Parts: sequence; C-alpha cells; structure tokens
Amino acid sequence: MMKRLADLPESDGHNQDSLQEECAVFGIYGNSEAHLLTALGLHALQHRGQEATGMVSFDGEKFNYFKGIGHVGENFSAGSKTLNDLKGHVAIGHNRYSTTGLNEVRNIQPFLTEMGFGNFAIAHNGNLINAERLRTSLVETGSLFQSTTDTEVIIHLVARSHQNDPVGRLTEALQQVSGAYALVSVVDDQLIGVRDPNGIRPLILGKLGDAYILASETCALDIIGAKFIRDIEPAEMVVISKDGIKSHKISTKKPSRFCIFEYIYFARPDSSLEGRSVYQARKDIGGELAKEANIAADLVVPVPDSGVPAALGYAQQSGIPFELGIIRNHYVGRTFIQPTEAGRTSGVMMKHNANSEIVAGKDIILVDDSIVRGTTSRKIVTMMREAGAKSVHMRIASPPTTNPCFYGVDTPEKDKLMAAKLTIKEMCAEIGADSLAFISIDGLYRAMGEKARNPDLPQFCDACFTGEYPVIETSYNKIA
Amino acid sequence: MMKRLADLPESDGHNQDSLQEECAVFGIYGNSEAHLLTALGLHALQHRGQEATGMVSFDGEKFNYFKGIGHVGENFSAGSKTLNDLKGHVAIGHNRYSTTGLNEVRNIQPFLTEMGFGNFAIAHNGNLINAERLRTSLVETGSLFQSTTDTEVIIHLVARSHQNDPVGRLTEALQQVSGAYALVSVVDDQLIGVRDPNGIRPLILGKLGDAYILASETCALDIIGAKFIRDIEPAEMVVISKDGIKSHKISTKKPSRFCIFEYIYFARPDSSLEGRSVYQARKDIGGELAKEANIAADLVVPVPDSGVPAALGYAQQSGIPFELGIIRNHYVGRTFIQPTEAGRTSGVMMKHNANSEIVAGKDIILVDDSIVRGTTSRKIVTMMREAGAKSVHMRIASPPTTNPCFYGVDTPEKDKLMAAKLTIKEMCAEIGADSLAFISIDGLYRAMGEKARNPDLPQFCDACFTGEYPVIETSYNKIA
Amino acid sequence: MMKRLADLPESDGHNQDSLQEECAVFGIYGNSEAHLLTALGLHALQHRGQEATGMVSFDGEKFNYFKGIGHVGENFSAGSKTLNDLKGHVAIGHNRYSTTGLNEVRNIQPFLTEMGFGNFAIAHNGNLINAERLRTSLVETGSLFQSTTDTEVIIHLVARSHQNDPVGRLTEALQQVSGAYALVSVVDDQLIGVRDPNGIRPLILGKLGDAYILASETCALDIIGAKFIRDIEPAEMVVISKDGIKSHKISTKKPSRFCIFEYIYFARPDSSLEGRSVYQARKDIGGELAKEANIAADLVVPVPDSGVPAALGYAQQSGIPFELGIIRNHYVGRTFIQPTEAGRTSGVMMKHNANSEIVAGKDIILVDDSIVRGTTSRKIVTMMREAGAKSVHMRIASPPTTNPCFYGVDTPEKDKLMAAKLTIKEMCAEIGADSLAFISIDGLYRAMGEKARNPDLPQFCDACFTGEYPVIETSYNKIA
Amino acid sequence: MMKRLADLPESDGHNQDSLQEECAVFGIYGNSEAHLLTALGLHALQHRGQEATGMVSFDGEKFNYFKGIGHVGENFSAGSKTLNDLKGHVAIGHNRYSTTGLNEVRNIQPFLTEMGFGNFAIAHNGNLINAERLRTSLVETGSLFQSTTDTEVIIHLVARSHQNDPVGRLTEALQQVSGAYALVSVVDDQLIGVRDPNGIRPLILGKLGDAYILASETCALDIIGAKFIRDIEPAEMVVISKDGIKSHKISTKKPSRFCIFEYIYFARPDSSLEGRSVYQARKDIGGELAKEANIAADLVVPVPDSGVPAALGYAQQSGIPFELGIIRNHYVGRTFIQPTEAGRTSGVMMKHNANSEIVAGKDIILVDDSIVRGTTSRKIVTMMREAGAKSVHMRIASPPTTNPCFYGVDTPEKDKLMAAKLTIKEMCAEIGADSLAFISIDGLYRAMGEKARNPDLPQFCDACFTGEYPVIETSYNKIA
Repeated sequence: MMKRLADLPESDGHNQDSLQEECAVFGIYGNSEAHLLTALGLHALQHRGQEATGMVSFDGEKFNYFKGIGHVGENFSAGSKTLNDLKGHVAIGHNRYSTTGLNEVRNIQPFLTEMGFGNFAIAHNGNLINAERLRTSLVETGSLFQSTTDTEVIIHLVARSHQNDPVGRLTEALQQVSGAYALVSVVDDQLIGVRDPNGIRPLILGKLGDAYILASETCALDIIGAKFIRDIEPAEMVVISKDGIKSHKISTKKPSRFCIFEYIYFARPDSSLEGRSVYQARKDIGGELAKEANIAADLVVPVPDSGVPAALGYAQQSGIPFELGIIRNHYVGRTFIQPTEAGRTSGVMMKHNANSEIVAGKDIILVDDSIVRGTTSRKIVTMMREAGAKSVHMRIASPPTTNPCFYGVDTPEKDKLMAAKLTIKEMCAEIGADSLAFISIDGLYRAMGEKARNPDLPQFCDACFTGEYPVIETSYNKIA
Repeated sequence: MMKRLADLPESDGHNQDSLQEECAVFGIYGNSEAHLLTALGLHALQHRGQEATGMVSFDGEKFNYFKGIGHVGENFSAGSKTLNDLKGHVAIGHNRYSTTGLNEVRNIQPFLTEMGFGNFAIAHNGNLINAERLRTSLVETGSLFQSTTDTEVIIHLVARSHQNDPVGRLTEALQQVSGAYALVSVVDDQLIGVRDPNGIRPLILGKLGDAYILASETCALDIIGAKFIRDIEPAEMVVISKDGIKSHKISTKKPSRFCIFEYIYFARPDSSLEGRSVYQARKDIGGELAKEANIAADLVVPVPDSGVPAALGYAQQSGIPFELGIIRNHYVGRTFIQPTEAGRTSGVMMKHNANSEIVAGKDIILVDDSIVRGTTSRKIVTMMREAGAKSVHMRIASPPTTNPCFYGVDTPEKDKLMAAKLTIKEMCAEIGADSLAFISIDGLYRAMGEKARNPDLPQFCDACFTGEYPVIETSYNKIA
Repeated sequence: MMKRLADLPESDGHNQDSLQEECAVFGIYGNSEAHLLTALGLHALQHRGQEATGMVSFDGEKFNYFKGIGHVGENFSAGSKTLNDLKGHVAIGHNRYSTTGLNEVRNIQPFLTEMGFGNFAIAHNGNLINAERLRTSLVETGSLFQSTTDTEVIIHLVARSHQNDPVGRLTEALQQVSGAYALVSVVDDQLIGVRDPNGIRPLILGKLGDAYILASETCALDIIGAKFIRDIEPAEMVVISKDGIKSHKISTKKPSRFCIFEYIYFARPDSSLEGRSVYQARKDIGGELAKEANIAADLVVPVPDSGVPAALGYAQQSGIPFELGIIRNHYVGRTFIQPTEAGRTSGVMMKHNANSEIVAGKDIILVDDSIVRGTTSRKIVTMMREAGAKSVHMRIASPPTTNPCFYGVDTPEKDKLMAAKLTIKEMCAEIGADSLAFISIDGLYRAMGEKARNPDLPQFCDACFTGEYPVIETSYNKIA
Repeated sequence: MMKRLADLPESDGHNQDSLQEECAVFGIYGNSEAHLLTALGLHALQHRGQEATGMVSFDGEKFNYFKGIGHVGENFSAGSKTLNDLKGHVAIGHNRYSTTGLNEVRNIQPFLTEMGFGNFAIAHNGNLINAERLRTSLVETGSLFQSTTDTEVIIHLVARSHQNDPVGRLTEALQQVSGAYALVSVVDDQLIGVRDPNGIRPLILGKLGDAYILASETCALDIIGAKFIRDIEPAEMVVISKDGIKSHKISTKKPSRFCIFEYIYFARPDSSLEGRSVYQARKDIGGELAKEANIAADLVVPVPDSGVPAALGYAQQSGIPFELGIIRNHYVGRTFIQPTEAGRTSGVMMKHNANSEIVAGKDIILVDDSIVRGTTSRKIVTMMREAGAKSVHMRIASPPTTNPCFYGVDTPEKDKLMAAKLTIKEMCAEIGADSLAFISIDGLYRAMGEKARNPDLPQFCDACFTGEYPVIETSYNKIA
C-alpha cells in the first residue's frame, strides 16, 4: 500500500518495535470450493497481515466479495452465510496490515471494479514507488479514487488502457509502475498472478488436483494439502484458465533481488521460499552468529517466538544449552493496562514473562531476530535481570537495521531506527545488556549459502541494512 | 463447576482431545488499582479458562461487577468504561472454561449475592462431589438456584448459616461440602482465600507493596510485579483485611494430594506450584521418559506448545537433536472449515503444520504431554508421515489417562478415554505410530523428586492415571 | 415492580411529563404456536412497556425462555432462532417499562425458577405495597434475591410454602401480599392467571379455537383473531390446563377499584376494559369537558396521539371544528439534540410540530389527556403561539393529578406534580395558556356512566386525583 | 437512484402497497453547529427515506462524513462521537429509501469524492432518465463506478469537465443529464442547491440567523426554528458562501411540473410546498371527493395515518361524523409473524386494528390516499367487516394510479398496479368493498386551486395517473 510515513502507528505498543509485513495474497482456480480453500489459505498466511481480510470469487456467473476488519477466522467461519455467499470456482484473497484504523474499510483488498470489459478484481502485496505521481496525473484527468492505496493506481491504469484484452490491459498498466509487487487478479474466468521485475516480494505456484494455486508462501499450500510447483519468476505473469496455465514476461527480467528479511522474520518457518527452508535459513543464521560472536554462558534463550530457530542454531553451533527462559502468553491483551503503582508492568509483560527458576543466577545469551526501535529489547533485558540473570548477552540474527523499506514493509522513519542513530556500543548501553552483537552482512549471506555479498549486484534486496535500494524513481524525489 | 458428563463438548474439534482446566481465580486486597491488577492477573491466567471472565470489586462503599463471554482482553480493555466502573481496593476475578455455551451467562463467576449481613462475592476453581445432593436438599426447603454451578451450593449454605460472622458462615458452609476447591471471596471489607482439605487445586499468596494477592498460579504475580510469599495450605482459610492477614483451619488438614496434572499440562511453564518449577518438572519428566523408553532416531520433535519442555528434557537426556518439526499457527480459526475435496485438511491443520524440510526422510521421536481420546495424536502422526518422516515414535510425558477427574477438570467419560479401552500396543496401531511409550507412574513420581509413588498414601492426586480418588462421597453413588 | 422513588428518570426528556404504565402481561394455553401468538400479543401491548420484553414457554418437556432489552419486534422477529427456540403449547410474556437501564437484565420478566416441585414461571403487572417488608424478612432467613423486583417476593413465598400443590403454594403466597397485581404464571402443564382482590390492574380472558388466552387488554386478542370471553374478576385465580379452565377465589373479593387512568391514558383506544370501550370513554370525557368548560374558539386541536379521542368528543359536543394543528413525527429521535444557538428547538420538537398554516391567526382549544409535571404543556403552548395562534385555551381530559400511584404506575414524587403545588390559575400562568380547565372528578365519573363519584366507596381507584388509596399497608409506614 | 425495475421488493410486506419516496436532502451553510442542525433536519425528513442516512460536513479545514444503515436517530444520537466528529459550519445530509439491502452501503449518500480541484460532496433526491446511457459511455472511456446510483454519473461528469471552476463543472455536468433532481452539494467552502428544469422534486430555501438552509420540505426548517424564504425555482442553482447567496440558471427554465403526489402522500402534512399547505391540500382533496362521490353512511373512517386529512375534509364537507375506526400501532413489528393456525392475522394486523366498538353495525366510508397494488385495501376492508361493519364504502383521495414513476419514486411495474389492470368496478369487487370511488383528475386539480387540468400543458407532473411524462429520453428506449 501507499506508504504514509507520517501515519506510522508510533503510539501502538503492539507494533512499535518490529517490522511489519503489509500483506498476504492467495488465489485459486479450478476447484468448486475455491472460497473454502481461500479462507484456509488466508488463515495460514495470517501472520502477514492481521488487521483486515477480504475475498473475491467468481462462480461462472457473478462475482462475489466480502471484506472485513479483523482476522480471517473472525470473518470467514465455517458454515457462515458470509462464506457460503462466496461460493465459486475461482477466488482471490488478501490479508492486510493496516496503518490507518477502523474506518478505512475502503482500503481493504481485494478490490473489485466493474470496467467496460467486465469485472476486474485484484489483490496486492508490496509497494509502488511511483504511485503518488501517477495518481496525481490520473486525478487531474478525471479519474476518481476511492481508496488511499497504491493498488488503485493499477486499477485506473487498466481502465484507461487502450488494449482490448484484459491481460493486455494489465500488462500495459504494470509497465507504467515501479516498485515491489506480488499480485493476484481475477478477470473474466481467469486467475492471474504477477511478480515485479526484481521479484522482491514472494509469490509461489501450487496445485491441488486440477486446480492451480497462487500464494505468498508455501504454508498456504500445506493447509489445503496442495503440492508446491515452483516460485513465480521476477517479471513473470501467469494466466490460469480452463485452458490451463500460460506464462508471459511483462518486461525484461531484471536481476532477482528477493527480500532477505522474509527469511529473517516475515515468513513462517514452515514455508520454503526461492528453494530455501525458512526454518533452516534462520537456524543457519543462528549458527553463523555463534561462529562470529559467541561468548561463554550458561544458557541460550530465545526471544519467543521469532527468535527460536536462530537460538536453536546458535545453541547447536555453540554447544550451550537451549532453554525457554522467556514464556510467551499467546492470549491477546488487546490494549495495555498500565497501573500507576505497579511500575514494572509494561506492554511487554502482557506477552512475555521470564521463566525465573531457569534464568536466576545464570549467564544468558538472548537471541532475537532484529532490533528496530530498541524499546522491546530494553524491556526484555530488564525482565531477565529482574528474574535474577547474572549477565545478559544479546545476539541479533540480522545486521543492524539502518534504513526504511519502500517495498511494502511498514518501517519507522530512519531517525526512529535505533541502529541508524547509535553505535553498537551505544545500543548495548541503551538496552542495558552486558554485550551486544549482530551478525555481519557477509555472515548473513553465508548463512544463505552464498560465499559473501556481491557488492556490485547483491543477490538479495538488503536495503534495510545497506541503504542500497534496487528500484529508485529517478524523476521523483521521494527516495533520493 | 458441577460436572455434567452428558454435556461434554464431543463435537467441538478444539477441545475434544485434551483435558481442560475449568477455572482460574485471582484476588487482591489493599491496592487502589485492584481492578487493573486483577485484569492483568486474569490475563496471565487465561490458559486456565477461555470461555468467560468476570470481576467483582469493592470500593469501600459499593460492590461493582462485570461478567462477559470471551477472553480477559476482550472484556477488560485499558481505559474502558467497563474497567473504570470496577474501580476498588479489593477485587476478585475468575476465568471460566464453560461446557454449555453463550446463554449461560448466569454461570459466569464471580457470583455476587446480597445477603442479610451484606454483600457476598465468591469465585471457585475445582469441583464439589456432594453438590447435587446438597442442592436437592436446599431446593426442597425453599432455596432458589440461579445457576447450574456447584459454587452456588456454597452460597446458599452461607445464607442459611446461623453464625453471625460472615467468616464463620463461610467456614460452616465449607464444612458441609466435599471435593476440590480453591476459593476467593469478598465479604465486607475482607478478602478471603480457602483451599480444600487435600489441597487438590492450587492457590498461592503474594504481595505487592502492602497489598496481598491470591492467585491460582505464580505467573499472575509476575505480570503485576508482585512477590511470591507461599502456597495456601490444604484446609487453610486466610482472611485479609485492613488489619493484615489471618490464617484459620476450616477443618483438620488431610494429607496433601495436589493434582499432578497441573505439572503435566494445566499450569503455565513459568509458574511454580508447591515449591516446584512447572517448566523444570516437565523437563524432568521428559528426561525420565528418555531414560525409560529411548529409541534411536534423528530428531526429537515436540507437539507444540505443551510438549516443548518435555521434548527439550528428552533431547538433553538422550542427546538426540531437538527440532521444531511442527509449527503452530497461533491465530485462531474459530471454526473448522472442511472442504469436501481437500481430504487431508482437518481441524489439526488449522493449528499445526509439519515443517516438511526438517522431518522429510528422518526417524523422529514425537513428544506430547498426554493422550486423551487419541484423535489428535492420530492426525499428528499422519501429518508427520505425509511430510516424509521415515518413522514416527510417539513418547508421552504422562502415564496412560484411564479415569475421569471429578475435581474440576473437564474429562470425557471413561469409555471415551483411549487408554481405558485399548492396550498400549493397540493404541500405537490406532494412532499409526511406529512405536508408542508412556512414562511409568513411578517414573513420573521420580521426576517429581520422589523415590517412587507411595501406594498407601500417594503424594499427589493421580486418579486420572490410577483411579484412586482421594475424596469419595460414600453415601452417594455418583462416583462409587 | 418495586417502586424506587429516588430512581425516577427525571433527566430523561422522553418520559418526564407523562405517567408510565409499567407492564403488560400475556399468556396462552393450548395452541402449538403459543410462542408466535405470544409475540404478536406482546407487540399489540407494546404501549404498556417499551424497555424490555421476555417470554417463557413450555413444550411438554422443557421450559424455554428469552429476555431482551428493547421492543418486541426487535427481540422476536419472524423466523428467528430466538423465536423458534421458544416453541411450545403454553407461553407467557411480559413487556417492561424500566426505570433503571441496560444492566438490569436480571429484572426483566417473566421470571423462571427451578423449584423442588418443578419449574415455575411468572410475569406481573402492578405493584405490591408490602414487598420491602416481606423481602427483608425472607433475606434474614436465608433467601437469596436475584432481582430488585417485588415480583421475586412472590416467588420466594411460593418456594417456602408448605402446600404440596403448586396452585396451593401460589395461593398461599398471594394471601401474604398486598397491592395491585395482574399475574400470569406457568407451572407444570398449567397456565394460571390472577387479579388482586380490588381488581386494580386489568386482566382479560379470551379464546382462539380451543386455546385460552390471558392478556392485559383486548387489543392483544384482536391481533391473533381471538374472541373476548370476559374480564378476570378481582381476587379470582383461573387455572387452565388440558382439562379446561377452573376458577378459584384466592381471598374474599373486595369492592372493585379498577384504575380509572387506564381509560384516560394507559390502555389502547381499541381495547375494551371492564365492559367499556376505551375510545368511547375518552370521547365521552371530552364531551363532558366541553359541557363543563367550553369557550368560544376557531379550532379544537388535540395534543397527539393521546389527546385525539377526547378532542374529537369535545369538538362533536361543542360544534367547534376538529383540526390536526400539531403533527407528530413517529420516528424516534432517541436522544435529544440541543444546538446551543437554535434556541427554539427542544425535545418536544423531535416529536411534535405545529401545523402553522392551520393555527396561524386562530383561537384554539388544545385538548390533552393530563398534566403531570407541566413541562410539555408549556412547550406545546409556546409552539402554538410561535406558529401564530391568536389565543390558546388548554382543556385537560382528567382532573388535576395531585398524588403519586403505588399500584404499578411510574409517577413522580408528589412535589414534582404540578397540580400538587399550584392552583389551576397558577398552572395556567406557568404553562402560558390563555385559559386552563380540567374535567371535574364528578364529570369524569359521569363520562364513565356513573351518576357521580361515590365518596364512601368510590367505583374506581382514583387515588392519583383524590389521594384516597384503596389498599394501605397499615403496619408499615411506606405510604401513611 | 437508478431504477431497477427487476429489484422491486415485492416480497416485503411493509412496502408492497404504497409508493415510496426515495430520498430527502438537507443542507446548511454558516452555522457552527451545522452538523447538529442537519441531524435535526434529517430527522424531520425521515418519512422520505428510512433505510439509510448520511452526512458530509466541512469545518474549514477538512471534510467529515458518516453513513449508516437505519434511521437518523439511530445513527446520529446527541453527544455521540459520530456526531461530534462531523462538526462543521457547512453540512449536507441525505435520507435514503433503498431497494437493495444491507450490503449496499456504497449506495448511501451523500457521496464525497476527492477531485483534482478538491473535495466534492453531493446528495440527490430524484432520478435521472439518461443515467444508464451516460454511465455506459463513461465506463467505456475509463471511469470506474463505485455505486449503482445515477447520482454517481453526475460526479464523473464533474470530474471530466474542462471547466476550471467547480460551479462551472457542476453546471456543465447537469446540462448533460435529464430527469428529476433536487441536489445539495458542498465544494470548497460553498453550499450549492439545484433543481431540475421542470422542478419535479421539491427544494426549499430557509434562513436561521445568518445561515442559509436547503431542504426537501419546510418541516425541516420548523424543527430548527428557521424561517422559510422561498422555493428554489426550476432550473435554478443557488451558490451559498461566506459572500452570501447567488442564483444562476443552469438551463432555460421549462414549465413547472411539480410532482402532485407530494401533496397526496409523500410530504409531511405540516410542510408547505410551492406555496401550498400539504395538510390543507389533502383536506381539500377530501372535500372535492365528498362533492363528487358521497354516499349515505354513519361514519367517515380514515386509514391511518396518511388518510386522516382527506377523511377530515370529507367529513366536514359531507357532514358525516369523523371517527377513528382503525387504530394504528406505531411500534414497529419489523418482520411479520404468521402463525399457521391463526388465519386472520396478517402484516396489516401488525400495524392496524379495527376499533370494533365504534364500527360494529355501522355503514362506514373508508378514506385512503391511494391504491397501488390493492393488497392492503383488501385486508383493511376485511378487517372492517370482521369488526362488524354493516357496509364499507371506499373513497380514494387520488385518481387511479395506472403508470410507474421514473422521477425518483419507487413504483411497481405497470402490471402490478391494480388500476392498470382492472376497472373500478372490478377493483371494488377485488377489495371486497360495497362501493369504490376515486377523485377525478379534474377534481384533484380543483382541490389544488386550478379550474381544471390543462391538457396541453398540465400544471403538475401527474404521469402516475395519466401516463403523460414531462421528460422523455427520446434517443434511448428506456421509457418510450
């Protein structure tokens, strides 16, 4: 969606200290229960967007849609009228991470639009970097926007296209936009999937019987018992219809720059992306981290849940025992109760508690996936000390996060990123740890199976660590 | 609550294959934000009851109450009018696991009753075994019941008591009931806590500044930064008022028979009960299990989340690597979507997914806390095989569950308990594992630090494994 | 319900200036759609209580119930699960006018209680004057109350009764209470109806095929196509079962003192009570008023809707044209919007508007049913003047309301009743009319077909006009 | 809104037998409580649309909006956050009568659109007859529609206009549409009101202090204490800003053809439209009807509420007494409960009941405003007979309704209109009356103060009675 840096939810304790993926997409063609399978797929992809969800289906005669605030399970419950009304053999769905609150129902995807040639439905994970410029131009010439999303720019470009064929219209529209996108779309009786020329955001293809599936991650195939076929390629558009699947290139394929943060934090550990197990990647990062920055200690303790695989890898590499020194309460305390007198309680305490009997009197290595603003790290370190830890050594399974993302991830502005402002030594002092280390950028690439990062043409998009953005809008000063 | 064996939610996929604790209690006296601290404490105890929650507070002038269906965080949100209206310096709260659905708001605790001597509030974890007999007798002599709970029997006995003092009335009432109870109560400006003569259900005492806290588990102290003082003793009643804390015995103390299943499954791993870390107890059970029943394999895989500590203990003892071969999706899919064609999908798939890249081609040891009906185990084993596991060896961190509980745990009838009907070999075939082993009853006691189970006077209540019930109503044939 | 003078909703603009009936009751035995017919009957009786509604039915095996805040049509909609779940051949229902707001769901009737002998359901229109004394005594001896209603006193007396037969128990209970009551009850497979010894509140008997119906007014018979049989008599209890209808006296019948205000305002104009058409009674009052207090004018204008029949009678008697000089907006403006600058707008304006083209330049006679606090009258007179009326003469179709009711009507305390504080001349000045006249008490009795009021034994309860209360609790100083 | 003849809600008992106005509009400029006054104005205009309501305001900096299903009082309650968030000095509002159900929130007006030149808000009462043709053309050239309303056509024409000035853009847009419209709009800091060239739908201008008000009817001025200034003229556009009010012609003014049905049924009786009191017009129609078609009888009985003024006029002209022989229950029974056995009950019974004591044994003249499908008339006549009426003579205060409306009124298709299919004699037999008469078309014009209808250029739009449509789209065969 269109990035609105001023709108970042700084006051929301829940989100303020991790990067947030902004979307999941799912699509299926050729199963009479496409709507049910889409609901399951979206449920499996819930971690990529928890604020809202939507589905559009086509039953051969009419398009059906539903959009709702909240989780998939709250909106699409088994046997519900909502779900039954979505019956169809083609469906696409979307989970959204929203920055703007309840009344922005108009921004929930998929979008369904009646065009001259018929209905057109689309859902998008990613972010376009030239959306504002295109939008201004479209509005000046009479287009009316109904949402604040960058996705709607694509829709108007499709409506304005002079191509006759819907697929040609979408191709023409995409040739005008830059940025990151993994799209699923339904037009006529076709399911379309597209990935941007750099393949920044993931999109995979699967099959269940005769039905084809498109999804952000492979875990959405597992839940419906579908088989993984392959990743959609950068710049590839697949068009799935009753005649099977066809592949086009929407432009010259550029070098792949897949988002490395998908491995570090966004994707589910049981997914495989670009041929690599996310769980194994995280364990390997933990192992590299142990090689680079180990220290004598009694226990390796993960910050749950995202730090667990890296901590396991660290423990196996270092030989230091892995223990659950922090217990996570998975029940949601939607808003944070702050008693004035009970000074120690904090938002972190609603989710985490020290396992005091285990950490008391011990030297511990705390493993987390990343540090964004640093506020959570400080609270976790404090919690460990109050539980009696003798020393707390923080080890981070990613390089310092120093730059915002412009490709579909909700990041704070640069001056809110702790690593953009402080040295590692200063960060260590700020979070109150006894020592602090990050994996090196080359260590990270080694964990990915590369010899090292190729500085001339990096194998991944790592702009959040390096500031080297793979796609820049040269004529427009948003990024430069 | 009063057990209704016929009402067991057999059709509810979510609950059908684990034992369910039926309640949490929390109470605090002497903090002007008692209501906020109670909401936090109940949030920390959410795992003991997720269906409904309630709070009663006293502000020196009037009693306030609220009861609601759903989680603590849904009912008591920070800054809400609901929570503000509960302001007081004394409060008790309750989380309920309900078997009977939405329209049973009348069964949500705490109960608040206007008696001749003033208001009387009470919340209860446990189950009385002579409640039906007492209820019949009370109804026949003109008492009107408003709920179907056993707790209300206590309330009527208090109302009928000829003692003048509310504390005396409650004592007299409790001398007439048998079974398991951990109670918190507010009467006048006093907070009362009581535990049954065998101490079957837990109740602990803590302190925050000058305020005293009663709670089912120590994790409720941690979230508010309170200090653990001690467990309330079997048959002990503590009365907390502005004059401090006083302790009484409500009857002769009987031998302690604390519920051993609290260590196996119910309690949070970061709690300590009766002087023992729950996490460490689970790890020790896993270690004993490895000593008793190890087998050569590539990986130790926990069934998340409850099997994790035992699996860690097993892995450390056996030297076989611990890996997250199953990934849990913590987002709730409230009802289970069952597409007819996608045969593999099941309720289990809404919560768990195999980490295929890790388990494919491996011999794995799967560690779970218990087997109740066996339906989940079968699905998990199948999931492992379909993910490519070469062999699946199931190891259970408790003895076979062969008998229902009558002390406040929601168990199926005996003929629904897999271990009551089948031999271990038959169970292994039924769940489709390559091998199956349970820890022995003596192994379990060894993990608890005992030399062995004392057959004449067992150190714990282990009736669900042995059928030896510590409290029986002789004149009433409910159990016998 | 138990009168709580301190709780009167003085700040609620909607209610502050008319007397409010507090309840409707309905019951039916012997129709397989008893639940549907009860919903229709309650809808026809909606004017007697708009805050909440409830139903209890019995289907031969079990009792079903539902209670809800709001109108009948909001709670019992055709084809709804709520209504289907109430299926039975016996049902009773209740509409409630509540003074205490949303969280008092516990006060919504009918009440359903499990007693030693079985289930007992009851619904009540009226008010008991010795309820507080009885309640205190019951609580002191161990009864627990769940509501703040006087009706619950009857329930506990039934539970305490030593009679074996439920009918005998209810009779014994009612012999202990004083005041006004029209009751419907279901016990075993019987429908019971009772009226207090003075017959203050109405209860009528009807028949539809083989089914018997009890209702507060005959309009509830019309909506289901049932036939009116007769009024239940003072002190009469009818017991309806599969064996037909049986009549008992619960005590010596006292002289009938039917509430005369039912004719003036409470009942629907299309009902007949005690053999008299309510519409005709109102027209006759208007006619008597014209005989007693006519004045030369251009138009007779009713204050809608309650003043319409009296205004018609007045116009026919006086020969002055009847015109709709005030138009009522029947859409509910639930709360009153008060712009600071638009000084003329008031709560009255949400419901009424002057028909300016009709009243401008005219001498008008404004006819209303009663004056309670006088605030509405003042606003209506002002509205007429601002619409251009030359003169406004107020004529009231009841004597001055000088005393509160203790028999089930929500009246302000005496010092809030305008006629209790001011002379008629002062009232006229206060409301700003050119003249003001009330019908005389004897004129009112003449309109009822009596020669005059019998001062020794009045033919009706007219305590709100005369202060002569037919039932007084001598040993208890609530009224005296 | 765009007429969808196929979508008429035939199955909805509530609407099937009267014509339904489809909208109310309200606008105000120059009062700091514009939002509160708009809520009051919409409440007064509730009778013109009950399904949904909306408001857009401008506070000098930003536009605020809210749209909701249901009545004004349900959506805009005093002191609510919804209402407070709408604070502004300019506001427009809309009540909608919807034919398409809950999920059509996108069709609720006012519409607020961000255009190149700024925000543009609009609300519309009426119907455009060339909307479908314009819409098709706009869609084919790249415009995306978000609703199914004809109003959105105007919005796209404004967006496409090459005029610089928003007022010029709106004028240019309106010059392309044909049909009936009364519009209010906010653009920049201006309130705009427009009426179509024939002035078919009403729009009036009022003033409160310095603030100007636009509304569908004068009753919306009364509720806020505003003064009526004049009707907006056919083809007139008024632009109200901080510089006062300016008037333009958007095209050559055509002969006025105001909708005569506004007087017969739609408008509130306390409104004045085009210089004529609605109440007086209805009384005069009743008087003419008595002159044309009187018959000897005992009573004149109105079908409430819409038949009351005509019945009064009839009674005054004929000298036959006016009596409330039918009583209306104003409480809403949202859906119609149909017990199978109680055959007499019907949807009509939920709203109306015979006043049996008055009509039994009498010859009655029943006066209603119109007959659409005739189903209600049949039920009302049956109800009168079952209540004992000796004879029932139906008199209708409009000519036979033989043609659908294309100017914003929801009418059934021609073959559902009883008068389009049957002779008056056949209609009389069908509804079961003893006699039936309608006012003649010339009698109707006489009641309007005309000598007779001018057949060459009728003074009103009376197409529903005559089939002579004042605006026809010649190049498009929708109507012809």
